[in-house]
Amino acid sequence: MKSQELVFTNNVGEAIDAIVGEINPPTVFVLVDVNTASFVLPRLQALSGAVANATVITTKAGDMHKNLESTKAIWKRLGEEGATRHSLLINVGGGVITDMGAFAAATFKRGISFINVPTSLLGAVDASVGGKTGINLGSLKNEIGVFRQADSVIVSTLFFNTLSSEELRSGYAEMLKHALLQDKESFDRLIGNHVEDLAPDTLLDLLQKSVLIKKNIVDTDPEEKSIRKSLNLGHTAGHAFESLALERKSPIPHGYAVAYGLVTELVLSHMKLSFPSDVLHRFASYVKEVYGAFDFTCDDYPRLIALMRHDKKNLSAADINFTLLRNIGDVQIDCVIAEDDIKTAFDITRDLLGI
Amino acid sequence: MKSQELVFTNNVGEAIDAIVGEINPPTVFVLVDVNTASFVLPRLQALSGAVANATVITTKAGDMHKNLESTKAIWKRLGEEGATRHSLLINVGGGVITDMGAFAAATFKRGISFINVPTSLLGAVDASVGGKTGINLGSLKNEIGVFRQADSVIVSTLFFNTLSSEELRSGYAEMLKHALLQDKESFDRLIGNHVEDLAPDTLLDLLQKSVLIKKNIVDTDPEEKSIRKSLNLGHTAGHAFESLALERKSPIPHGYAVAYGLVTELVLSHMKLSFPSDVLHRFASYVKEVYGAFDFTCDDYPRLIALMRHDKKNLSAADINFTLLRNIGDVQIDCVIAEDDIKTAFDITRDLLGI
Repeated sequence: MKSQELVFTNNVGEAIDAIVGEINPPTVFVLVDVNTASFVLPRLQALSGAVANATVITTKAGDMHKNLESTKAIWKRLGEEGATRHSLLINVGGGVITDMGAFAAATFKRGISFINVPTSLLGAVDASVGGKTGINLGSLKNEIGVFRQADSVIVSTLFFNTLSSEELRSGYAEMLKHALLQDKESFDRLIGNHVEDLAPDTLLDLLQKSVLIKKNIVDTDPEEKSIRKSLNLGHTAGHAFESLALERKSPIPHGYAVAYGLVTELVLSHMKLSFPSDVLHRFASYVKEVYGAFDFTCDDYPRLIALMRHDKKNLSAADINFTLLRNIGDVQIDCVIAEDDIKTAFDITRDLLGI
Repeated sequence: MKSQELVFTNNVGEAIDAIVGEINPPTVFVLVDVNTASFVLPRLQALSGAVANATVITTKAGDMHKNLESTKAIWKRLGEEGATRHSLLINVGGGVITDMGAFAAATFKRGISFINVPTSLLGAVDASVGGKTGINLGSLKNEIGVFRQADSVIVSTLFFNTLSSEELRSGYAEMLKHALLQDKESFDRLIGNHVEDLAPDTLLDLLQKSVLIKKNIVDTDPEEKSIRKSLNLGHTAGHAFESLALERKSPIPHGYAVAYGLVTELVLSHMKLSFPSDVLHRFASYVKEVYGAFDFTCDDYPRLIALMRHDKKNLSAADINFTLLRNIGDVQIDCVIAEDDIKTAFDITRDLLGI
């Protein structure tokens, strides 16, 4: 997989124009959803000549529209507006736009150039590196996609003032995960702060450190054969919480689910790999304070376990696979855990979060 | 792009079982169309344990069904039947099945393993190497796709007895193109024969030589930045003939269009690059004898030229781009040719083919 240019800057217009100048495409397209079309695009058009002159493609907002129908509409617009295999697509938005826009670009005429400009913290920290593109198929998340790196990703905090505290905290949970995978210094740096109180340049600096942790892991194992699985920390339990909330028709933000999932998986790490108890307690207190708690009882355990069984990370339908930690920065991938241990971990999670 | 294993054999069952044994997938799927389901699949199920035990996915036959709707049905079947990212898809059929099946596999859960077993000569010689996967979007051919190599391609002549002479000749035209790109020896070897008279093992040998010519070119330039464009020889004019025939509601086989296109482009090669007149005449005589002629008049020139302008190989809408030859094996890519010269070449083509 080709490598990508990763730019951390709050001079977003200049950065886009410089990169478009290098790529020098015959035509430029900008993909936005109806939200970024209103709140971000006009600012970006004022800051960047390339964006101002580009053809704008607008799609519906929200994960339920990250689907084949929307992708087909993007392909059709590209074709109708004369895009060639040398054209460039700039994806401006959250994870939905960067995942789907990247997939559309990666498959249009067997792949055209694209740049991602994430406008949410979650998008910046989670979707800006890794080359995972994709769309949902029915209720199956990211069922269809390819691995393809953007030509460039421009990471900034410039548009974060349009985000709610909840959206900021959601992104911050992925930064906490990266810190847990890295070292105690990274962990201490994050857990001392509340994301909504950080100045834009301070947050950009923390964000850069966090994205580079992910980048190092992804560069080592781009197609998730081995160590990239460490990025699944918190996500086996987290996805189950997220899906259960969705089934109850009271969805929770992805990062909140990850925060709760990290608590459960650090409990498992403590049970199975002697992850230090004091760090677990410190982390769980932070989650309880910042993210509150996800309300679940013993009656939900069978459904949560069934949801974990269907996770596409499992090698076989019989196993439930986790990434766990021996300590901060000391990762053990491919841990198959028995149901009874998972239930115990749920009990302790509820206890720690005061559920 | 990863490299692929290319196996030339008429012991197809053994070859499939050996490769499936190496890949060792938890589940195996076989994609066929309604034709290969009847004429090829039962034979293959008798020859290969892996195929006999696989879940069969059947799709409609014909290029008009190489579309998003069919691809979505394949994705859904894979999901419903429990395919994981470690599953294997075996595509058994002509170019439609291998192009679409490869695209479906390359995008299902961001890419699963797949094997191509081409059952037509055209599929074997044209689609078995190169990693071009794709489907049509509306009337736009191969508008959506990715570059992705099969894990293995098993090339045989075992199923060619189900093909008509027309289908055999259609595939042979692509072999003629490869010979023109390679050397005089390859050219002489092919032009002395009629494909329908060849014994299976003789044809397999010629086919192997032909596919390896293409493989060498593709390995040098997998994403068609430069020398891979040489494989477009005959196809700029050829696609225009093919599209015109389709517009007239009397379609011609792809390889026939390529044969006529090769004549026109060797005429241009003679006009612009002094390609030897005797080789041009020898080739045109062979085409006239084997492929007959495509009936077109001066009144068709403007439409043919318009069709060539829309070719996705062009860098800009203003130019018409050809791959031409100075001599057999001496290629010149990116030749932009003026309309008047193209018209002259059409005049000479009609003369050579007795139209």
